[in-house]
Amino acid sequence: MTISSLDDLRAQLRQLPGPDNQALEKANAREPQLTKPPGSLGRLEQLAAWLSAWQGTHPPRMERPRARVFAGNHGVVGKGVSAYPSEVTQQMVYGFEAGTAAINQLCKTFDIELQVVALDLDRPTADFTQAAALTEAEFVDAFNAGMDAVPAETDLICLGEMGIGNTTSAAAICHALYGGHAADWTGAGTGVAGAAMDIKIAVVGDGVTRHQAAIHDGIDALRHLGGRELVAIAGAIVAARQNRVPVMIDGFISSAAAAALEASQPGALDHCQIAHASAEKGHRQLLEVLNKQPLLDLGMRLGEGSGAALAVGLVRAAVDCHRGMATFAEAGVSDKED
Amino acid sequence: MTISSLDDLRAQLRQLPGPDNQALEKANAREPQLTKPPGSLGRLEQLAAWLSAWQGTHPPRMERPRARVFAGNHGVVGKGVSAYPSEVTQQMVYGFEAGTAAINQLCKTFDIELQVVALDLDRPTADFTQAAALTEAEFVDAFNAGMDAVPAETDLICLGEMGIGNTTSAAAICHALYGGHAADWTGAGTGVAGAAMDIKIAVVGDGVTRHQAAIHDGIDALRHLGGRELVAIAGAIVAARQNRVPVMIDGFISSAAAAALEASQPGALDHCQIAHASAEKGHRQLLEVLNKQPLLDLGMRLGEGSGAALAVGLVRAAVDCHRGMATFAEAGVSDKED
Repeated sequence: MTISSLDDLRAQLRQLPGPDNQALEKANAREPQLTKPPGSLGRLEQLAAWLSAWQGTHPPRMERPRARVFAGNHGVVGKGVSAYPSEVTQQMVYGFEAGTAAINQLCKTFDIELQVVALDLDRPTADFTQAAALTEAEFVDAFNAGMDAVPAETDLICLGEMGIGNTTSAAAICHALYGGHAADWTGAGTGVAGAAMDIKIAVVGDGVTRHQAAIHDGIDALRHLGGRELVAIAGAIVAARQNRVPVMIDGFISSAAAAALEASQPGALDHCQIAHASAEKGHRQLLEVLNKQPLLDLGMRLGEGSGAALAVGLVRAAVDCHRGMATFAEAGVSDKED
Repeated sequence: MTISSLDDLRAQLRQLPGPDNQALEKANAREPQLTKPPGSLGRLEQLAAWLSAWQGTHPPRMERPRARVFAGNHGVVGKGVSAYPSEVTQQMVYGFEAGTAAINQLCKTFDIELQVVALDLDRPTADFTQAAALTEAEFVDAFNAGMDAVPAETDLICLGEMGIGNTTSAAAICHALYGGHAADWTGAGTGVAGAAMDIKIAVVGDGVTRHQAAIHDGIDALRHLGGRELVAIAGAIVAARQNRVPVMIDGFISSAAAAALEASQPGALDHCQIAHASAEKGHRQLLEVLNKQPLLDLGMRLGEGSGAALAVGLVRAAVDCHRGMATFAEAGVSDKED
């Protein structure tokens, strides 16, 4: 799958497939028969049903979870918005390839296949206080790279990112989409504080002010203020929907990329779960706007898809319970006295 | 390890070993060297340090997690406090043995060794509205069964329970220890509502009123209002501390058993994490009193140690990140610009 232009993307968003209601009904029929008080596995029960609906199969499967980490560089880093230099993006990609970063350990822990997609790291986006971050052609390339990264044979795809400067980009997207003050959406990222934080807030505000008139939907916001890794995440989300692959979104940056799709096409994220509430400022507010309840809340704010990988354990547990538990009839357990 | 009497238990509680500060310091020294912004793995970083401190070793290990599910029956069920009959306790134990319950699937998912300890299921405790639930001899037997269930070669022990009627028992323990109204601590359990819920609340209140004068500490509350599986959980917590085994406590009932120890000896739960905030009424309030922050909050209320098993994924992830990630120096990644 590919898109040929922004308008082609908009057309594809209007055609997204819905859930498989037959698979969903089968999940909902099996759940109350399992040997436990009704509802007592809480969110795990919902995850099993959600997975069935969006995989389009019952029982749901969790044998082939995959993670994709997209990396990009940001011209806006020249403004002094990050505690780390841009070279760290490439250095961390080397770490992903060497297997030494957090996401590598987490993918080993939860048996997740991992691929890292570095997107033109030697060609940062334009500084969005000066110009649109990406041209339409650059957007299309990054989006297609994201679409291309989702094999159909995937039971769940975890999406994450690496990109020095990309919390600035994510904050600007949220500010453009949902208003408020730049400071409402701007957090410490890798650890900026004091004067650097003032600069970061000003940069977010300046970027949105500069482009607001040209931003008519989420896709516009993503092109003017985003980065290649955010665009690729959006591409992966769309391709996953078209391929019947449920999505696990990581933290603030991934959610901001996702939000751009939801802003363009309400319901575009129905096949997505948000893995965790990031400690990065703005994420909780964004989750409220998106009406998404995160699975985990552990004070994490690393990115790399780390929260999404961690949530795979929960989804696998949900599937294993739904598939493996006996029914009251099978187990000869007395059902509720009523 | 065993206890010979309640007073022997009280003496042992005064002698509990503390954390290994040397192992803790090593964990705290390694963490900021790992290739991520400081603190960005949030609670996972704290879990790695906590595990080191209470295992008494650095790096921490997670190769041998075990789960113990204790089962007991409750005389108070005769009062009509549960939606299921007492026979279900034994039926669910058969399910645990056959591998068909939720806890079996979760232990498979997370590679946890599981043992189920059924405690005199044909001899329910006394109805605590009429007499103390357990005699001292019965308490000592159940406590020692719990102590006996914790091998020294254990990296983390998950504690859970099964026992029709035991949310009534747990609510009564909390009400006795922390006051308030019986209704504050009494929830739906397996699913009671309406008139049955009124009975359950009255039973909790009656039990506490009957025994309050005889309850001088947490141990007394546990004997008068508890059940064998709750006492065994307390025993396992104490044995784990003595054996340098960190503990993962499950939900409301397990937490109530644990609370009895903390009430008798503040600090007795320092080697314990609470796996999740149960949907059972009373648990959040109990966690606040205990000053414990749960790891998960997924609307679960099954018991069986199901939340504790689910949290093993998080602890293993914490250990894998702490052990496996490269340091900035090893990876050649530029550290923060300050």
